[in-house]
Amino acid sequence: MLKLFHAWGSCSLASYLALEEAGANYEVVVMNTKAWDQRKPEYLAINPKSRVPALVTERGVLTETPAILAFIAQSYPSAKLAPLDDPFAFAEAQAFNNYLCATVHVAHAHKHRGYRWADDPVAVAEMTRKVPETETACFQLIEDSLFKGPWVLGEAYSICDPYLFTLSGWLADDGVDIARFPNVAAHAERMATRPAVRKVLAERAA
Amino acid sequence: MLKLFHAWGSCSLASYLALEEAGANYEVVVMNTKAWDQRKPEYLAINPKSRVPALVTERGVLTETPAILAFIAQSYPSAKLAPLDDPFAFAEAQAFNNYLCATVHVAHAHKHRGYRWADDPVAVAEMTRKVPETETACFQLIEDSLFKGPWVLGEAYSICDPYLFTLSGWLADDGVDIARFPNVAAHAERMATRPAVRKVLAERAA
Repeated sequence: MLKLFHAWGSCSLASYLALEEAGANYEVVVMNTKAWDQRKPEYLAINPKSRVPALVTERGVLTETPAILAFIAQSYPSAKLAPLDDPFAFAEAQAFNNYLCATVHVAHAHKHRGYRWADDPVAVAEMTRKVPETETACFQLIEDSLFKGPWVLGEAYSICDPYLFTLSGWLADDGVDIARFPNVAAHAERMATRPAVRKVLAERAA
Repeated sequence: MLKLFHAWGSCSLASYLALEEAGANYEVVVMNTKAWDQRKPEYLAINPKSRVPALVTERGVLTETPAILAFIAQSYPSAKLAPLDDPFAFAEAQAFNNYLCATVHVAHAHKHRGYRWADDPVAVAEMTRKVPETETACFQLIEDSLFKGPWVLGEAYSICDPYLFTLSGWLADDGVDIARFPNVAAHAERMATRPAVRKVLAERAA
């Protein structure tokens, strides 16, 4: 059975939602990142990067959201979570997820995790200050250029959708009104009606 | 024919090397990022992200290095640049490349591109200052935990190798001695002997 190390409020929600959409046989270990669970020796033995998500499989541990999402899509092909037989279309899906990971998530991380890139509290505060501007630029690009609709890749739901839903869910915390991006806002509402999303979010409330 | 928009000194070298290793039919457009070629309207029409690489295909434009590398591997399967028939092994390759993209490259970007995340010159300078420390931590993790050897994934050369070679080539500029990481240093030397690498690097010298 697959085991996902997950923290509420983190990007591991995307993998959690994808596992549920795939109909995978999985369990979830909820980490408390505010208590620094991710820095404890028992977790570092699983993932020396000290981050979530980590997906424990029979073959070993996988990390990095875009890699995990593609793995889920390839492992459960009947769920049709990515255009697996079309290298160009698959690359478009991966490019979208990679943008979320390396640009959008990174921009967001400067709000609460600026200490990764600076020690001076003045610099850390300055990074936090700029986050609404950088996140707005990221989501404007998604709104105008990357999002096809009704789902990220067009008519077919894919591994891009739970990831976008996860990161657009951070906009309010980043001081950005999602209503500025009508396509992204409608996508979030559309996502919230999916049974898999309702089921997973109910776990958080429980 | 594929067309790669590339800039010397940028991460697009990884895609260039992979195209050459794949035996692809491609051409290269060399951008001058110091002259802000990437912000010119004609390039923004190709890639609104205003970054390299961009790979123009018959089907459209692909961006994001990990996505382009996987696309090259899938498009030229006889080159055996990734474990394409094994979702777990493929995910390990993708996780490595994703770490390079979203953590290692991002750490490096704080040296010259701190303005992406802060306006205050004091904060930008503080980010630059910390880069040797963050890059050292990244490459220590690669050295100790991620790199299998003699190639990134073990015995088989893959799309992870040109990407690691590209980013380890930035260590000197980042103020970090690659000799601190014997596996990574030996990998860079091993890479430099490959005909595809020699050919591409000769283009830079030309």
